[in-house]
Amino acid sequence: MQKIIYLDNAATMPMNKKTVEKSAVFLETDFFNPSAGYSGGANISKQIAKVRESILKRLSDSGNLIFTGSATEANNYIISAGHKNKRGDIIISKGEHPSIMATATASGANIKYVGLKNDGTVDEAELLKLVDSNTALVSIFHTSNETGAVNDIGRLAQKVKKINPNAVFCSDGVQTFCKYEYKLGADIDLYSISAHKIGGAKGIGGLYIKKGLNLKPLLYGGGQEGGLRSGTENVYGIMSFGYAIENFENGKQSLRNHFVQMLEKQRKESVEKGKPFEYTINGNSDWIVSISFEGLKGEIIQRILGQKGIYVGRGSACSSKIGGNKTLEAMKIPKKLVDGSIRISFGPQNSIEEVTVTAKELADTVCQLRQTD
Amino acid sequence: MQKIIYLDNAATMPMNKKTVEKSAVFLETDFFNPSAGYSGGANISKQIAKVRESILKRLSDSGNLIFTGSATEANNYIISAGHKNKRGDIIISKGEHPSIMATATASGANIKYVGLKNDGTVDEAELLKLVDSNTALVSIFHTSNETGAVNDIGRLAQKVKKINPNAVFCSDGVQTFCKYEYKLGADIDLYSISAHKIGGAKGIGGLYIKKGLNLKPLLYGGGQEGGLRSGTENVYGIMSFGYAIENFENGKQSLRNHFVQMLEKQRKESVEKGKPFEYTINGNSDWIVSISFEGLKGEIIQRILGQKGIYVGRGSACSSKIGGNKTLEAMKIPKKLVDGSIRISFGPQNSIEEVTVTAKELADTVCQLRQTD
Repeated sequence: MQKIIYLDNAATMPMNKKTVEKSAVFLETDFFNPSAGYSGGANISKQIAKVRESILKRLSDSGNLIFTGSATEANNYIISAGHKNKRGDIIISKGEHPSIMATATASGANIKYVGLKNDGTVDEAELLKLVDSNTALVSIFHTSNETGAVNDIGRLAQKVKKINPNAVFCSDGVQTFCKYEYKLGADIDLYSISAHKIGGAKGIGGLYIKKGLNLKPLLYGGGQEGGLRSGTENVYGIMSFGYAIENFENGKQSLRNHFVQMLEKQRKESVEKGKPFEYTINGNSDWIVSISFEGLKGEIIQRILGQKGIYVGRGSACSSKIGGNKTLEAMKIPKKLVDGSIRISFGPQNSIEEVTVTAKELADTVCQLRQTD
Repeated sequence: MQKIIYLDNAATMPMNKKTVEKSAVFLETDFFNPSAGYSGGANISKQIAKVRESILKRLSDSGNLIFTGSATEANNYIISAGHKNKRGDIIISKGEHPSIMATATASGANIKYVGLKNDGTVDEAELLKLVDSNTALVSIFHTSNETGAVNDIGRLAQKVKKINPNAVFCSDGVQTFCKYEYKLGADIDLYSISAHKIGGAKGIGGLYIKKGLNLKPLLYGGGQEGGLRSGTENVYGIMSFGYAIENFENGKQSLRNHFVQMLEKQRKESVEKGKPFEYTINGNSDWIVSISFEGLKGEIIQRILGQKGIYVGRGSACSSKIGGNKTLEAMKIPKKLVDGSIRISFGPQNSIEEVTVTAKELADTVCQLRQTD
């Protein structure tokens, strides 16, 4: 079988061997229901509490965390419960993940959209102009899933609350958690995270809830997760989340830099050969490269690379059913560049060699497509 | 380490070794996001479709199935989406799982409760008296998670629809699926199932939706699961669901019968010794034994057996935070018997020897407790 070079880590990440092995005990041996009244159940309950604590310690010095079935669920919770809490306008950026966008639309609330700057971050001045006494909830992504652009959410939250202290400030932290060290300040009310974006299992997410914030439950039933999210705990998923954090190694930044250097090298060489390899990098980030090729179709580049065993992204997998790329459009990147864009994102399992090969194969693919134009 | 005899299969079941091994490939190797545009993603998408098909084939000759994060989520969906669809009264039985009970309460709808008969099934005459033109939704459990009593939901649905053809008829099928062969008739609109109750992973459930029934989404976002339940698919969980079905072995009925015989044997022997081992079996079922000991506390029996390495249930683990036992109470079982009840439920991994040992240890525990009274 062809060896795959996987560079779509923003969509999902493979589980680390150590994480898989350590989590496996919770399937066959320690499989008990944490709510059961015997010591096996109580032990699982303790293990879950430890993971919860270790995540919370990274996020904040106080507050609570509930486990959800996905970050999408956590984002649905942010919008629906957050908004139910206090009727009024919802403000979100034009670069939010579909799980924020679509839930806001479905909520029936009046939605105000904040634009993005050319570097992929939100336009702070525009945001602050939109906030008023009728603002119920503001949700701004922390790290963009499309470009990797990072918003200074602490600063934004503080400025929003200065105008309206009652507004709930939320942030989608899926692409940030573990990848950067970041402690949530007192102005952040809700924050969503995901296990499979850092090498844990799919089907498990989390929602940070600031201490003292009262929310209505999302799912009703047995009263698990402090009554906020009923349902038998996904023990394996939660444990894999904990081990994924322990086993997460960074180093994507150097891979990203190496990749950009290799692209530049390919460009120079191609110019010498008289078939220039032209490209545009969208926004600026540490570990995601959103890159556009004018006049080409991103999906065709993705498919050809895929046939060569190189898997790259093309914007959020969660947007694949929607099409387009709302984030790049909001950055006012011309349509012909949006259409010709792919997304490359690095993970701990990637090597320098893989990055070098990818830059070379990408340049070859693009030049070949341009020639057959 | 002490060898555990696990007899709380109605709460959760250990994963079968084969299921664990076969599912593992979807963690490290085939870990791709099914929505991704390369062949690895498309392959996962096909694998998920196969599992969906195999489940649907068991449930019905038509209809759709969406995967959820738990059966609790599916039951929340049943009540909230089913009721949103058409405002009016909700009718549920007094023996429903907390995820039906609590969601119905939270919906704000007018709820009518149907009582249970002494055998643990719903009182059909009482149900039909409650149905009228204002009935929006009826939800009746298929197999009780407390007693194992089985309702003839096809017959009930047909009779309900004869009075009000517009009422949505739903059923919680968690304790039935795979354990009995059952095809849903045309009168059943929604039906919930769970993977971890048949040896799949925790954190994955399913909702059967009758063809032509329009529902509002439960979670918004990337539009997965036909737009009804957004969020990256829990690939591992879904695959484990499929393998669990393949690897599920029955044979609980013979264990249940053997257990009842062994209890009777213990009773006879105890009478000869002059310390009678008295008990009452609540309801009648094929694989769950709800058993009461007058004057004793179920939780104490559970704890002592647990110390001996025998794990038995005490009603729904999902009720552990609520207390009491609504199902037994609805069967009009006296409080002193409800308080002294435990639940024993068998799974494919249990052996005849385990059952024999359990009957003996249970009799010893009960006699000892009665002596120290």
